[in-house]
Amino acid sequence: MIVDTAVYENGSRRPGKLELEDAYEACRDGKRFAWIELQDPTEEEFDSVVHEFNLHELAVEDAIQAHQRPKLDVYDEGLLVVLKAARYIESEERVAFGEILVFVGDGFVITVRHGEAPLDHVRLRLEQRPELLRLGPAAALYAIVDHVVDDYGPVIVAFEQDIADVEADVFSDERATPAKRIYAVKREVLKLYAAIAPLVEPVERLEESDLKLVPDELRPYFRDVEDHLIRYVREIEGFRELLTSILAANLTQVSVRQNEDVRKISAWAAIIAVPTLITGIYGMNFDHMPELGWTFGYPLVLAVMAVACLLLHRAFKRAGWL
Amino acid sequence: MIVDTAVYENGSRRPGKLELEDAYEACRDGKRFAWIELQDPTEEEFDSVVHEFNLHELAVEDAIQAHQRPKLDVYDEGLLVVLKAARYIESEERVAFGEILVFVGDGFVITVRHGEAPLDHVRLRLEQRPELLRLGPAAALYAIVDHVVDDYGPVIVAFEQDIADVEADVFSDERATPAKRIYAVKREVLKLYAAIAPLVEPVERLEESDLKLVPDELRPYFRDVEDHLIRYVREIEGFRELLTSILAANLTQVSVRQNEDVRKISAWAAIIAVPTLITGIYGMNFDHMPELGWTFGYPLVLAVMAVACLLLHRAFKRAGWL
Amino acid sequence: MIVDTAVYENGSRRPGKLELEDAYEACRDGKRFAWIELQDPTEEEFDSVVHEFNLHELAVEDAIQAHQRPKLDVYDEGLLVVLKAARYIESEERVAFGEILVFVGDGFVITVRHGEAPLDHVRLRLEQRPELLRLGPAAALYAIVDHVVDDYGPVIVAFEQDIADVEADVFSDERATPAKRIYAVKREVLKLYAAIAPLVEPVERLEESDLKLVPDELRPYFRDVEDHLIRYVREIEGFRELLTSILAANLTQVSVRQNEDVRKISAWAAIIAVPTLITGIYGMNFDHMPELGWTFGYPLVLAVMAVACLLLHRAFKRAGWL
Amino acid sequence: MIVDTAVYENGSRRPGKLELEDAYEACRDGKRFAWIELQDPTEEEFDSVVHEFNLHELAVEDAIQAHQRPKLDVYDEGLLVVLKAARYIESEERVAFGEILVFVGDGFVITVRHGEAPLDHVRLRLEQRPELLRLGPAAALYAIVDHVVDDYGPVIVAFEQDIADVEADVFSDERATPAKRIYAVKREVLKLYAAIAPLVEPVERLEESDLKLVPDELRPYFRDVEDHLIRYVREIEGFRELLTSILAANLTQVSVRQNEDVRKISAWAAIIAVPTLITGIYGMNFDHMPELGWTFGYPLVLAVMAVACLLLHRAFKRAGWL
Amino acid sequence: MIVDTAVYENGSRRPGKLELEDAYEACRDGKRFAWIELQDPTEEEFDSVVHEFNLHELAVEDAIQAHQRPKLDVYDEGLLVVLKAARYIESEERVAFGEILVFVGDGFVITVRHGEAPLDHVRLRLEQRPELLRLGPAAALYAIVDHVVDDYGPVIVAFEQDIADVEADVFSDERATPAKRIYAVKREVLKLYAAIAPLVEPVERLEESDLKLVPDELRPYFRDVEDHLIRYVREIEGFRELLTSILAANLTQVSVRQNEDVRKISAWAAIIAVPTLITGIYGMNFDHMPELGWTFGYPLVLAVMAVACLLLHRAFKRAGWL
Repeated sequence: MIVDTAVYENGSRRPGKLELEDAYEACRDGKRFAWIELQDPTEEEFDSVVHEFNLHELAVEDAIQAHQRPKLDVYDEGLLVVLKAARYIESEERVAFGEILVFVGDGFVITVRHGEAPLDHVRLRLEQRPELLRLGPAAALYAIVDHVVDDYGPVIVAFEQDIADVEADVFSDERATPAKRIYAVKREVLKLYAAIAPLVEPVERLEESDLKLVPDELRPYFRDVEDHLIRYVREIEGFRELLTSILAANLTQVSVRQNEDVRKISAWAAIIAVPTLITGIYGMNFDHMPELGWTFGYPLVLAVMAVACLLLHRAFKRAGWL
Repeated sequence: MIVDTAVYENGSRRPGKLELEDAYEACRDGKRFAWIELQDPTEEEFDSVVHEFNLHELAVEDAIQAHQRPKLDVYDEGLLVVLKAARYIESEERVAFGEILVFVGDGFVITVRHGEAPLDHVRLRLEQRPELLRLGPAAALYAIVDHVVDDYGPVIVAFEQDIADVEADVFSDERATPAKRIYAVKREVLKLYAAIAPLVEPVERLEESDLKLVPDELRPYFRDVEDHLIRYVREIEGFRELLTSILAANLTQVSVRQNEDVRKISAWAAIIAVPTLITGIYGMNFDHMPELGWTFGYPLVLAVMAVACLLLHRAFKRAGWL
Repeated sequence: MIVDTAVYENGSRRPGKLELEDAYEACRDGKRFAWIELQDPTEEEFDSVVHEFNLHELAVEDAIQAHQRPKLDVYDEGLLVVLKAARYIESEERVAFGEILVFVGDGFVITVRHGEAPLDHVRLRLEQRPELLRLGPAAALYAIVDHVVDDYGPVIVAFEQDIADVEADVFSDERATPAKRIYAVKREVLKLYAAIAPLVEPVERLEESDLKLVPDELRPYFRDVEDHLIRYVREIEGFRELLTSILAANLTQVSVRQNEDVRKISAWAAIIAVPTLITGIYGMNFDHMPELGWTFGYPLVLAVMAVACLLLHRAFKRAGWL
Repeated sequence: MIVDTAVYENGSRRPGKLELEDAYEACRDGKRFAWIELQDPTEEEFDSVVHEFNLHELAVEDAIQAHQRPKLDVYDEGLLVVLKAARYIESEERVAFGEILVFVGDGFVITVRHGEAPLDHVRLRLEQRPELLRLGPAAALYAIVDHVVDDYGPVIVAFEQDIADVEADVFSDERATPAKRIYAVKREVLKLYAAIAPLVEPVERLEESDLKLVPDELRPYFRDVEDHLIRYVREIEGFRELLTSILAANLTQVSVRQNEDVRKISAWAAIIAVPTLITGIYGMNFDHMPELGWTFGYPLVLAVMAVACLLLHRAFKRAGWL
Repeated sequence: MIVDTAVYENGSRRPGKLELEDAYEACRDGKRFAWIELQDPTEEEFDSVVHEFNLHELAVEDAIQAHQRPKLDVYDEGLLVVLKAARYIESEERVAFGEILVFVGDGFVITVRHGEAPLDHVRLRLEQRPELLRLGPAAALYAIVDHVVDDYGPVIVAFEQDIADVEADVFSDERATPAKRIYAVKREVLKLYAAIAPLVEPVERLEESDLKLVPDELRPYFRDVEDHLIRYVREIEGFRELLTSILAANLTQVSVRQNEDVRKISAWAAIIAVPTLITGIYGMNFDHMPELGWTFGYPLVLAVMAVACLLLHRAFKRAGWL
């Protein structure tokens, strides 16, 4: 689906909706640039774009099939940047990924979105900053990359919360067994890492190298994005190490609790074994057992058993076994 | 066995089957190129090829003995690329590897296959794309590398499924003990990694460096292959880390279950210990035990024992021990 | 809040408090430099500074929002260095971080602090060293970086103590279960690492590269800071490995103790099982059990039980089970 | 001990045994080269060689004392290559290492062997390949390095077998406890790694750099050796990761088995506890217990106990506890 | 404390003790060099040296405060090398570290020692090698670095022994619990690593770079030192991995032993439970229990109990539980 077709001239949008060819024509002389937005395009829709803007065969293949890694490809005809948008789904404790492809050429920028990757705000916000828009199609690229990277922030925060939750579970006195959740969080963290980390190098290249499509004025902006990105990547790396430690700590806690259980159980077994032994003694059939003839022998023995139990109970309590 | 001998001219195959010498002669002037395919060649078969095409002594040794690592060797006479083809064998949950050697020279490409590594489709599909074939023998190299790398995809998917299976095993309530399977999957993943990861660097060199046998037009194609390859390598790295975590999580689950068992067992032991103590009490031989003389003493005591058991059972149930 | 505005000329501070514009004016000719200090500035406060000193839009954004990684950005207008100040809070066993931004331009240095990051001493101490002050605004940068890095020292020492404490806990005979604390220390260590490690590269660039704002005389000073910084980073890396080992050792200790408990419990169970068996024997109702008729049968059996218990107790003691 | 002294001219060995000085003299003009072989030389033996061939003081020190790491030293007088030969000793499941030092100079090659490092075949096989011998002393170096690296192959295969064995042990139903063997294999693997891995860089330098003593024709040969070497190094790295996983899997298996034991034991305890309780009931001394007066009360109770045991046994069997 | 002041000319020491100024004067023309040795100098002692030899302010700070990392600083005035001397203290199973600072300038070398770092032998041995001494102050630097690195050897050997000891402990049948010692060794190994590893890079720079103070003739000597150093560093890295494996193997052994204990205990419990059940049976009060009336009923039952115990004992023995 072609979502929008716009032409920008001197920092502001030309009024009116345009056909693809008109957009192409309008941008031929390099004074304007066209921004074509597509969402999950069919092969035919995309073919028409390819035809007008003369994109490379391989770039086209990328655009139809999702499941790319973040990357920056430099063709003679322009740049292709692939991005992964991420959104945390609270209810399922997992991250949903979308994919955004940005083709930047001389006089045009084409964006293709797959899955969850809204870009409307990006365009509107960029239209408020004519001084950026004036820098040409790479400004649109910057706006998109900046937006996608900014959106990683809430996901990171959500993971921070998840990790705090499992930490609380691991060290709480309740006998939760959070191994499954720890593992699930780790799995999602690894997925997020796989989606974000490969973007560092492309952004670095946008900042550092002398791509003719990226004007010098934009470089500090891409560096700013890179700063954020690296911060997120480092945080995720920290999560990985933390989760490994949590898994180990959890195993220890499970063992510690088992130990406590074994001791508690054993204490009760000991408490009950002593009166049982006493009953055994007075259940013996010796002819000469003076206590058996005592009038208060029975209640006395019951009392002895009760006292023995109480003393043992107190002793185990003190030793921390109960 | 020499599977096929073909000569390509201007993007299409010359009709008719050829002898080796004819192929060699036909390609001498650089306007055509020969494609010789061999499958598990004997030393003599390969010697005849070597003789015609003047390959390096060491390259020959590689071609006869399988068990190479993926690599790219540059000789004066041309390139030697070694590839590992992989296929997932569902029934055995393991990966079968084949080996493909591609010698690319001025005017010829020679492929040698060991084990499972079918290339027929590659040739047929490439013959449909004359614009690629026109780029010379390196196009055949590209077609083969692309094919081999694409075939890693289903293997990766199969491992994803295996990992999902062991995850389900680890966290299911059934007392499966998937340690053996986790380990087996890890072992296969490591093998796959060893077969795939070393290919990244050769493909990178095919893309980046100025090998005179690789025309500039092919470079984006090799970069495309590299993109896929790196994605697969990163996924396998993710699998390795996941499997390490699964192994740890599994150990924790085993401990948690042991803990549950110990508690359940102890609860039952406690439930049975209480009536046992009571029987002990009324088994004592004191002369003065009024309860013993009661008419309903016996059923009363049985009832007390039953009630005690029920109360204990309920208490343990509430505490989550049963 | 603007904390202070000063102009330095020829190594010493110009007397009197200055307005922002005056400071800016005074430093225009490059013979003096202004040092503006701000603490948690509002957007307006900072805007006035930006306006006078012509800072980059992105640098401004950084200054208002805290939560940057340590970094060095080079703009046309000057340098931006972001630092993390760290302070160990004994009572909570955690590290508190502040953030310091230093803008260095031709003729001025602007510092912005967020959170805990006192700089008063820095300025006063630098004012005692006119030979450094004479080197211009980069001397102020050096003084600040040196101060921040020096302050990491006590934090490192505090962690050394924490680690020594948990080591003692792990291997003490008391049944402490320090898993939670080990994990907490590890968490703080990872945070500290994330705050310190990224600073190495900026300091290296200050030392090595040919930034025109950093005079050659200052390079050995930045190298000295780098030396300290690397030492701290290496120590933290050592902490991480140590803590991983401690976590593993702790798990082993927990298992060892469980083992000891199980043996101790079992020993007591065995000690009590033997007299119980004996009571069972003499509780049997056989008509012909000569011992039952003996006058001293009962005390004899009690004695036998006592001796059996004592012997078992001694045997278990020797075997190390009790 | 000086094992052999030979002079090679134009690809073949000069007949007759030579004295050291004669060898030295013969090779002065660069048309021939001498190959001196020493085995565990004494200081005096080696001194005579040093004296004739003018070796560097430090190289000499290396030659007498074994325990070097694999390395390549370039002196003005020539090259020194240190190699570790490895042989797997089946009976002890360990690797024996020898050390080979190769001094290559203009017109001579001197080999010094310590421990197990036979080189006879190397020389004989090289003498069959005059086209290599003609390339001068570096050909001898190639032959030795190739031989040493090829000999790593059987060691790798032996470790593969060892690892397959411990895998079988870990997952077998027999209660082997292979932790000791796993550890022993890991230890040997680490030793082998330490002996092999540092050789990669020297071989790479022999292949790539422009050492004047290594003719261009030999470079593909050294690259071939490097290929093998890297394959072995990667396999050893795979072994390390596998062994770490095996150790973890083994711990899990130990826990799983403990769990099974605990359940089996508990099941038997439960089976015996029920008849014990019943005997307790009928051991009570109530006056009114009608069952006690039944003629078949006793056999009935015995039958009830037997049935209870059987039912419990079957229930536990079904639950997988027995 | 100034330990010694010497002037070397043409490879030998000038006779007589000198004052600092005389030494300085004597070496001004570059034909001689002075060697000043200090041990834990006070600030004043060092100030006098600084004053004469014109050292950099920051180098001075380093010299007074110990606790540097090994490093090489290049100042305009010369070099500063910081070294860590290590000595294994058998009785405490730990490593004691000293610190040595070497200032090398044009015509002088100044050494400052803190803690355990004897250098007497170094000077005496160097004075026996005039051909080295003639190379100037860098020869003294070489002699010191060589000495310090050689001294790491015995420490490595001591750790090898420690590791062999803990291995024996872990796999011995005695129930040692060497977790504490394993951890202690690991801790010391990490400390040693932190002291040695950072020295590699400075030594490499001494060997490779074109520092004007280091004559070309000395480079092979520094490379020799580097070889030793790298070997030690690699060995320590091996220790780290081994110790991690030992810790894991130890945990497994602890679990295995617990398993054995649980089985042994359970076997004994089963052995005692059977006669207990039998006593229960004959303790029942049924009127019709024919065995009770048998003359040899009692000894028969005792015999049955004994036989049951023996059979069970043998069965458990065979099953490996006892």
